[in-house]
Amino acid sequence: MSRSCCWNFSPGPAVLPEPVLRRAQAALWDLDGSGVGVLEHSHRGPEFMAVFARAEALVRELAAVPDDYDVLFMTGGASSQFFLVPMNFLGGGTADYACTGVWSQKAIAEARRFGTIHVACTSEPAGFTHIPAAADTAWSAAPTYAHFTSNNTIYGTQWRSEPELPADVPLICDASSDIFSRPIDVRRYALIYAGAQKNLGPSGVTLVIVKKDLVARGARDLPTMLSYRTFADHGSMYNTPPTFGIYVIAEVLAWVKELGGLAAMGARNAAKAKLLYDELDRSPLFSGVVRADSRSHMNVTFRSTSPDLDAAFCAEAAALGLLGLAGHRSVGGMRASLYNAMEPAGVAALVEFMREFAARRA
Amino acid sequence: MSRSCCWNFSPGPAVLPEPVLRRAQAALWDLDGSGVGVLEHSHRGPEFMAVFARAEALVRELAAVPDDYDVLFMTGGASSQFFLVPMNFLGGGTADYACTGVWSQKAIAEARRFGTIHVACTSEPAGFTHIPAAADTAWSAAPTYAHFTSNNTIYGTQWRSEPELPADVPLICDASSDIFSRPIDVRRYALIYAGAQKNLGPSGVTLVIVKKDLVARGARDLPTMLSYRTFADHGSMYNTPPTFGIYVIAEVLAWVKELGGLAAMGARNAAKAKLLYDELDRSPLFSGVVRADSRSHMNVTFRSTSPDLDAAFCAEAAALGLLGLAGHRSVGGMRASLYNAMEPAGVAALVEFMREFAARRA
Repeated sequence: MSRSCCWNFSPGPAVLPEPVLRRAQAALWDLDGSGVGVLEHSHRGPEFMAVFARAEALVRELAAVPDDYDVLFMTGGASSQFFLVPMNFLGGGTADYACTGVWSQKAIAEARRFGTIHVACTSEPAGFTHIPAAADTAWSAAPTYAHFTSNNTIYGTQWRSEPELPADVPLICDASSDIFSRPIDVRRYALIYAGAQKNLGPSGVTLVIVKKDLVARGARDLPTMLSYRTFADHGSMYNTPPTFGIYVIAEVLAWVKELGGLAAMGARNAAKAKLLYDELDRSPLFSGVVRADSRSHMNVTFRSTSPDLDAAFCAEAAALGLLGLAGHRSVGGMRASLYNAMEPAGVAALVEFMREFAARRA
Repeated sequence: MSRSCCWNFSPGPAVLPEPVLRRAQAALWDLDGSGVGVLEHSHRGPEFMAVFARAEALVRELAAVPDDYDVLFMTGGASSQFFLVPMNFLGGGTADYACTGVWSQKAIAEARRFGTIHVACTSEPAGFTHIPAAADTAWSAAPTYAHFTSNNTIYGTQWRSEPELPADVPLICDASSDIFSRPIDVRRYALIYAGAQKNLGPSGVTLVIVKKDLVARGARDLPTMLSYRTFADHGSMYNTPPTFGIYVIAEVLAWVKELGGLAAMGARNAAKAKLLYDELDRSPLFSGVVRADSRSHMNVTFRSTSPDLDAAFCAEAAALGLLGLAGHRSVGGMRASLYNAMEPAGVAALVEFMREFAARRA
């Protein structure tokens, strides 16, 4: 099967823009005419430093990151942020967490090692099929920070906007699966983290946008590599960063900018998601899994009328080049991940096959 | 400047084999005819799982890793292993460290947070220009473990063989800059770690080879991502691993195998280093920095007669495509890194230019 006949709906690592892949192929051999490939450049040489500066500048430009925020490139994925955030900032205090799925639960479990965790809301009783309403949420009066997961990859739910918090509570967000998929008001956050492998680039890099005064308040006497301060003080270069991942992020963000930035990306993603949700709402065979007000623009979860039929659908789809549609093993059904790099034509191809598949079984 | 006229002597990230880069270029677009590029495959899909299995199998085959050792792919570089080793295994006890340079010093500094550190030997008074002799080394009778840095990238020194320890002391090695550059008897080690970006692949992956019974003895109640047990129990896939880095490692190791494995690689590296050290021993202008018995086969450090002349040499060399020859900023002079992927022809080109440069100044 060749690339030209495939659409990759994988939940992550996930599809990347084809122009980015073409540029990365050239850079593997020779970065910007330097005679040396991107994997082979010293991270402290001028060629890679230029790549790094471009990546940071594009993060700042696209998300209008204010000057009093640091942009950090770390490793260890969101799973490492789960403990790094409380290790650096909780210090035995109380933090509030919104629980909207497995990744929230893991973040909560790691945080409990470092203080008291108040679960301000949870949609677990409903199988995580919606985002809790403000009326069902009880934030503490003055938690050390509040944490939420902006998009829930497994279930296909997404916060439409930030939770409403008491004033002056630092808001921390795991944005791994919807970072830069729509405009974001960084000022509302103290810290945003995201594994790169959905909307930004390859796995192995974590983007962190953090308010400088939060970094300054962080715990001291941590192992050097576990302190946000180390990354902030050394421009993410205390040790060798994952250079290729940062290169790909820079190229992806340049592509996002070319397409019009986060507002354009948000409109494009909303349109792609609408195409698929509209089909689910009118299909005689398929239906969406989550509550309409909580539908994710990134991961669309749906089912047919039986697990056997779901499996047949996924197998036939894969044979046609519609790849990665099986739902997460913990929930079953189907999941179409429509990250930034998924072309509208891919969603159209999926909808067309869903219709054809349903018609054959009418 | 095009790739064909360059030799890249960068200390890391460093030169990679050209056949590997060519294969990686193809895989970025389409991995093994799957219709999806290597960056875009789910880490849990059959295509990447095959890559992962190949990487682990090649590590095991090339180094004859016994079955009672785990092979782990982690992130955070050697700098993270500096604290992970004592966090998991020291538990307030005493560990012995051989101090042979900045990286040893950093490992010691992180370890002091977790117990008592006995510096068994140090070459610091001599500016780290040799590996301490056994006669100058005092190991504790029964330390929890002993740690050494097998190759010292900055200074250009290398242990010829493992330090001689009291029986049954678990030996832990930072092999970041000479892993798989020569045969290794894994049985002599409890844990070997190496950032990939010198001999194995791109930055952003750390290879760890660790005895299973050491993992089993490790601390409990650590944050999930800070425990070797998590990586061992989940086949390095508790969270999304750095998939592209692991892919490149698999390709690099396949190339090492094709060239004859670690014995052939060791002979090739010894021959490359000899070419350059012989020139240093006979040059009227250049001389080696470190003691003859401690010379590294990976990083050859040398000087001319003045810092100004060193700078002129590096600049003229770079103009000719001999890149990355400036010594580490802390020691000055020159450093030629001759990792596995540096071709003998590159060393010959360097030697030829050194002669020509010296002749012009005679």
